[in-house]
Amino acid sequence: MESLKKYDSKPDLNKPLLIECLPGIGNVGKTAGDFLAEAVGAVKFLSIYSKHFLPQVIPDKDSVIEMASNELWFVKNVKKRDIIFLRGNYQGSTQEGQFELCREILDICLEYDISGIITLGGYGTGTMVDKPRVLGAVSELSLKEEYTKFGVQFVPEDPQAGIIGASGVLIGMGKIYGIPSICLMGETSGYFIDHKSAMALVKVLCKKLKIKIDVQALKEKSEQIDEFTAKVKEFEDRNEHEDLGYYG
Amino acid sequence: MESLKKYDSKPDLNKPLLIECLPGIGNVGKTAGDFLAEAVGAVKFLSIYSKHFLPQVIPDKDSVIEMASNELWFVKNVKKRDIIFLRGNYQGSTQEGQFELCREILDICLEYDISGIITLGGYGTGTMVDKPRVLGAVSELSLKEEYTKFGVQFVPEDPQAGIIGASGVLIGMGKIYGIPSICLMGETSGYFIDHKSAMALVKVLCKKLKIKIDVQALKEKSEQIDEFTAKVKEFEDRNEHEDLGYYG
Amino acid sequence: MESLKKYDSKPDLNKPLLIECLPGIGNVGKTAGDFLAEAVGAVKFLSIYSKHFLPQVIPDKDSVIEMASNELWFVKNVKKRDIIFLRGNYQGSTQEGQFELCREILDICLEYDISGIITLGGYGTGTMVDKPRVLGAVSELSLKEEYTKFGVQFVPEDPQAGIIGASGVLIGMGKIYGIPSICLMGETSGYFIDHKSAMALVKVLCKKLKIKIDVQALKEKSEQIDEFTAKVKEFEDRNEHEDLGYYG
Amino acid sequence: MESLKKYDSKPDLNKPLLIECLPGIGNVGKTAGDFLAEAVGAVKFLSIYSKHFLPQVIPDKDSVIEMASNELWFVKNVKKRDIIFLRGNYQGSTQEGQFELCREILDICLEYDISGIITLGGYGTGTMVDKPRVLGAVSELSLKEEYTKFGVQFVPEDPQAGIIGASGVLIGMGKIYGIPSICLMGETSGYFIDHKSAMALVKVLCKKLKIKIDVQALKEKSEQIDEFTAKVKEFEDRNEHEDLGYYG
Repeated sequence: MESLKKYDSKPDLNKPLLIECLPGIGNVGKTAGDFLAEAVGAVKFLSIYSKHFLPQVIPDKDSVIEMASNELWFVKNVKKRDIIFLRGNYQGSTQEGQFELCREILDICLEYDISGIITLGGYGTGTMVDKPRVLGAVSELSLKEEYTKFGVQFVPEDPQAGIIGASGVLIGMGKIYGIPSICLMGETSGYFIDHKSAMALVKVLCKKLKIKIDVQALKEKSEQIDEFTAKVKEFEDRNEHEDLGYYG
Repeated sequence: MESLKKYDSKPDLNKPLLIECLPGIGNVGKTAGDFLAEAVGAVKFLSIYSKHFLPQVIPDKDSVIEMASNELWFVKNVKKRDIIFLRGNYQGSTQEGQFELCREILDICLEYDISGIITLGGYGTGTMVDKPRVLGAVSELSLKEEYTKFGVQFVPEDPQAGIIGASGVLIGMGKIYGIPSICLMGETSGYFIDHKSAMALVKVLCKKLKIKIDVQALKEKSEQIDEFTAKVKEFEDRNEHEDLGYYG
Repeated sequence: MESLKKYDSKPDLNKPLLIECLPGIGNVGKTAGDFLAEAVGAVKFLSIYSKHFLPQVIPDKDSVIEMASNELWFVKNVKKRDIIFLRGNYQGSTQEGQFELCREILDICLEYDISGIITLGGYGTGTMVDKPRVLGAVSELSLKEEYTKFGVQFVPEDPQAGIIGASGVLIGMGKIYGIPSICLMGETSGYFIDHKSAMALVKVLCKKLKIKIDVQALKEKSEQIDEFTAKVKEFEDRNEHEDLGYYG
Repeated sequence: MESLKKYDSKPDLNKPLLIECLPGIGNVGKTAGDFLAEAVGAVKFLSIYSKHFLPQVIPDKDSVIEMASNELWFVKNVKKRDIIFLRGNYQGSTQEGQFELCREILDICLEYDISGIITLGGYGTGTMVDKPRVLGAVSELSLKEEYTKFGVQFVPEDPQAGIIGASGVLIGMGKIYGIPSICLMGETSGYFIDHKSAMALVKVLCKKLKIKIDVQALKEKSEQIDEFTAKVKEFEDRNEHEDLGYYG
C-alpha cells in the first residue's frame, strides 16, 4: 500500500535541487535544512502519510492534531535556482519502510526533473566537538572538487559504517538515476540537538547557493552550546584536580 | 493483500457520522461505543477480516466459531442523523497494520460520504480517577468550541505522547480528507474496564446527538467501581496509620 | 507477492471435501490426516511455495533437495465423495503469513467448489491423556448434531484461547463463504507426536466418510505410547513411595 | 514493491549457466565465485537494489558511495558456455526478503533461458578443517553422478538443518522450473574467510567447466591459513602439556 499523499498545490518548478533534512544524529540535518527552508521562504506543497510512520497523531497547543508525515516544500528563484525541501519529524520505522519511502519520494521528485540532491545529516563522534567539520560523500567524483571549495572535507571510506536512512538511500538512488547527489554531514557529539554543527552545514549550503542569510538565531544557540561545553569542561577539570588531591 | 470483506447488507445512508469504538486503554471507548450502538439499535452490515489480526477463531457457547474481525454497524435517523459504528475486539497488531486497516475502513466510509468522525478512547492516568473528565483533540478548531459546550475539556498539547492506534489514525486521516473529526478520551486509571469513564463519554455523545438513553446499566457498574475504589482507599488509609505506628 | 504454485495435474473434482492436516500441537492433525490420505490413495496435484515458509531446502537420503511447501492432494470417489487433502511440513511463520496462505489456498479450493472443510488439530492438555477425546468447533450449528453422532464432543467456549493457525483460519474463512466447516481436535499431552490421539481422529473421520481402513500401524504406535505412559507412571509411583519413606 | 533494477547492458546469452556466489558461512561461496568470475573476465550488466537490503550507502576511498545491491555479471563462450554470476555483499535480511529476491532474480535469469544453476556455499563444521571436502545437494539424481566425478561428495540427508538462504532457495526454485541445479558446499570452520575451502570449490568448478585457471592467489592465502592453523595447534598442544604438569 502506497503512501497517502495530500497536495496543497502543484508548483511549476524548473529543474529544482532537492535538499533532504529529516531527523537524524544530533538532528543536525533537520536543524540546518529547516533553518534554510524558513530563511528562503519555502512553502509546503505536499504531505506524505505512510504506514511506515508510527500510527499516531499529535495535538498542538490548540488541541488540533496532525498525523505523522513527511513533507515537500518548495521555493522558486533562489539566485535563479528552484529548490524542493524534504522535511518532517519522522523517518520510516523499518528498513523496508526507509527504502520504500525514499523511492516514493524520489519518484515524485523525478517528475519535477530534479537536477541535484543534497542530503543533510550528522556525523556522530561521541565526544564534544569544538569546531565541527562538514564531511561529504558523493555520487560522482566531480562533486568532490566543487564542494571542497566550499570547505567540505572528504575522508576516504568514511563513515565506515555507511550512511544509513534517507540521507544515504536518497543519494544512492540519485546515483542510480544519474542525478548529481551529495550527503553533507556536520560533525556532532550526537548528545543533543546540535545548532553549532547545523550552522556549519548552513554556511556550506549558502556558499553552494551563492546566498547570504542571517544565521544570528543559530549563532546564539551555538554560543549557548559553547558555554555549556565550557562549563562541562571546567567541572571535569576541577573534579580531576580534586581527584588528584584525594588519591595523592 | 487487502482485507476480506463480508457484507450482510449495503444500507442506504445519508451523510452518516462515523463513531469508532475499538478496544484501547481501560476499554473506555469500546464500552461507551458498544453501549451507545446497542441503545440506538444499530445493525451490523459489514465484517472485515484482515491479516493484521491474530490468525485465529474463537468458539462461542454453542461451539460455533467466529474469526477475528472489525465490524461496521449502522443506524438510521437518530434525530435525523445516520450513524456508522466501527466495532470489534481487535486492532491491527502491527503499526503498518493499524495504518492499512484504518485506511481501508475509511475508504469504505468515504463511499458512504461520512459527514464527521468521532473516535472514542481512554486517557490513562495511572491513578484512580474520582470524576473522570472527557478530554478532546480535534481536526479543526471549530469543533473545540462545539464540544466545549458538551463538557469536553481541551488541554494544550495533550496527550503529549500522541493518540495512538485507530482513535488517532482515523481522525488524522479525517483531517486529510477535510472531514470534521474529534477524538474523545475518558480519563481512566487504565487498570480495569472502566464503565464510569465510559458513562462520562456516553453523556457527551448524548449531548452531541441530542438524545436521551437509559444509562442505568453503566451506572450500576460505575457504582461497583466506586465501592471498590472506596475500599481500596480505606485499606490504604488503614495501612498508612499502621505504618506511622510502626515507624513512630 | 503471491506464492509460487506448481501443478502436477489439474484434477476434475466433484464438490470435494477439504481436509487440512498441517503440523500443530502433538502433530495430531498431521499424523491423522497423512495416515488417512495414504490409506485412501490420495495423489499430489499442487505444490505451494511461499515467502511465508523458511527460505531453505532439505536434502533427502539421495541428496535430492525439496523446498519448504504446502501441498494439495486429491482422491476421487471415496464412497462417492471426492476429497482434497492440504498437507505439508510447515505453516506460515508469521501471523500475516498464516492469513495470506490460508486465503490463497482457500481461493484455489473455492475454484474446485468445495462442499465442506474439516481441519484437524491437537487439543493440548499438558498432562498425559489415557483416552483422548475428540473435541469440535463448527462454523454452523447443524454440524454439531452430525458430528456428535460420530463421538465428537463439544465444550462451550472451548478452547478459550481460540484455535490458532490454519486449523482455525480455514474454518473461519469457510464460515465467511458459507461452507460447512469443522475443526476436529484430538486431546493430547502435546509432549510428543501423538499417534493415539491421531487414531481417535481417524476413527471419527472414517465414520464421517463411511469407510473402513486398517489402523493397525497407528494402533501399534499407540500401544507403544501406552507402554511408555505406564512406565512413566510406575516410575513416578515408586519415587513417590521412596519419598514418603525418606521424609517419614 | 519490486526491486529497483539498473541495467548497464542487456547481453545476448546462449542458455547460460547461473552461478550464485553471495556471502555466507566462511564466505566460501562468495570467495570462490568472485575469484572465478574475475578469472574468466565476467562483466557486470545488472544491479538490483531492494528494500530487503540495509537502507544504506557505503563510501569508497574517493568518497563515492554505492548502495547495497546484488549484481548479475556475464561472460560469453567459456569453452562454448555462457555464464551469469550472481554477486554481491548482501543477502535479503528477512526470510520473506530472501524468497522474494531469489524469485525476482530467477525470473530475470529465466528470461535468459538458463540451462543450469550452481549455488556456492560453505558447510560449517565448527572445527578446523585440514582438507576441506566439497559436499553437494542436487535438484535431480543425474547431477549426483556427474559431480561425483569432479570429486564432490554426497552425504545422505546432509546438511540436516537444510541449506538456508539464496544457495538453498535458488536450487529449490530451479527444481520447480525443471532446471538442473546443484549446491556446492566447501567445508569450513566458519571462523574466518576461508580461502582454502574456496580453492577446493574453484577446483570442482574448473573440472565442470573444463577450464584451467591460475589459483596461485588463493593458494597463497590458503597457505597462510595452514600456517595459522599449525600455530594454533602448537599453542594448544603446549598448553595441554603445561596443564598436565599443573594437575599432575
